[in-house]
Amino acid sequence: MELGVNTTTRMARWEPHTRERLERAAFALFVERGYDATTVAAIAQQAGLTKSTFFRQFADKREVLSSSQDILIELFRGAIAEAPPAATAIDCLAAALESLGPVFTPERREVAQQRRVVIAANSELQERELLKRARLATVIANALHARGVDKTSARLAAEMGVLAFNTTIARWSESANRKPFTTIARAALRELQTRATLLGNQG
Amino acid sequence: MELGVNTTTRMARWEPHTRERLERAAFALFVERGYDATTVAAIAQQAGLTKSTFFRQFADKREVLSSSQDILIELFRGAIAEAPPAATAIDCLAAALESLGPVFTPERREVAQQRRVVIAANSELQERELLKRARLATVIANALHARGVDKTSARLAAEMGVLAFNTTIARWSESANRKPFTTIARAALRELQTRATLLGNQG
Repeated sequence: MELGVNTTTRMARWEPHTRERLERAAFALFVERGYDATTVAAIAQQAGLTKSTFFRQFADKREVLSSSQDILIELFRGAIAEAPPAATAIDCLAAALESLGPVFTPERREVAQQRRVVIAANSELQERELLKRARLATVIANALHARGVDKTSARLAAEMGVLAFNTTIARWSESANRKPFTTIARAALRELQTRATLLGNQG
Repeated sequence: MELGVNTTTRMARWEPHTRERLERAAFALFVERGYDATTVAAIAQQAGLTKSTFFRQFADKREVLSSSQDILIELFRGAIAEAPPAATAIDCLAAALESLGPVFTPERREVAQQRRVVIAANSELQERELLKRARLATVIANALHARGVDKTSARLAAEMGVLAFNTTIARWSESANRKPFTTIARAALRELQTRATLLGNQG
């Protein structure tokens, strides 16, 4: 019995898809039972893994929801910093959205859908999501400003970047939609630019 | 003695500036001692009023910070809803910012400065402020969409409205600045429009 547990633990440690398995199990349970009612023990059991394996991957169940957000904030920051010197603020946003393509693969669509359902059902999670979006906007604005974009343009472009990202995620995670994330993102950013021109020229 | 307390209470109830006195006392203490270390009893004492007078004006000390935010959200909503039918999204934002003029009077400048200092010093208050701004953006977007503005333009205009408001508050509450709130607001909105045109035409 003790040997059995150890073997499972050791296998899990080296199993390449451990994190993804735990994530899928967690989201399935969050949708089924609600976020608050789901325990780490239940997530591990659903994934066929142990609690200690869970805790080697995530600090707590909260982190299952938030870790992907931290990754995307870093992708935005990196893509903007590394864009060619001549890139405009919009070029930087386009590069950042493009850099998310390898994250938002077709296999991630189901988890993204579930994530939206879980967050929509829980006001505390909604607040945390809004705070993450505010942090993303600040990171984008600072990264653009560091490239020499004036503060006002950087803040406005950052809001456009967050809106483009939110729109893209919403459209991409619709089950009827089969377009790649980056195709949807390009169209969303283009749409926002058209609206920016219109608003800029009003009254 | 008992008569004395009752007289104070009754006077406070009918004193027209009770709320302002409590607010000023609260902000002075928040800056001096920190938000967390300030009690309702200390606020009432500093204002020369009783705790029960405080609780007739505010649910708790948190509300001293947040009540003005709720008022401004309602002013935005009302001004957008009541703008003339031909008003563009930008006209609506201009009308909303204009409607804040009677709130952000020169006498309010000191409290506005203190409010910024208090919030900057406390991460929980910063989060609550970000959430209020997110709520303001949603209220503006919904009010514009209710007038027939398409959703994408409404969201982008709402972010411009929040940015214009944030910029205006920051500039207006600087002690060196003596321009009226609405003058600063008009310039801030105009600046954002110029940036929107530039971003719209990029790449």
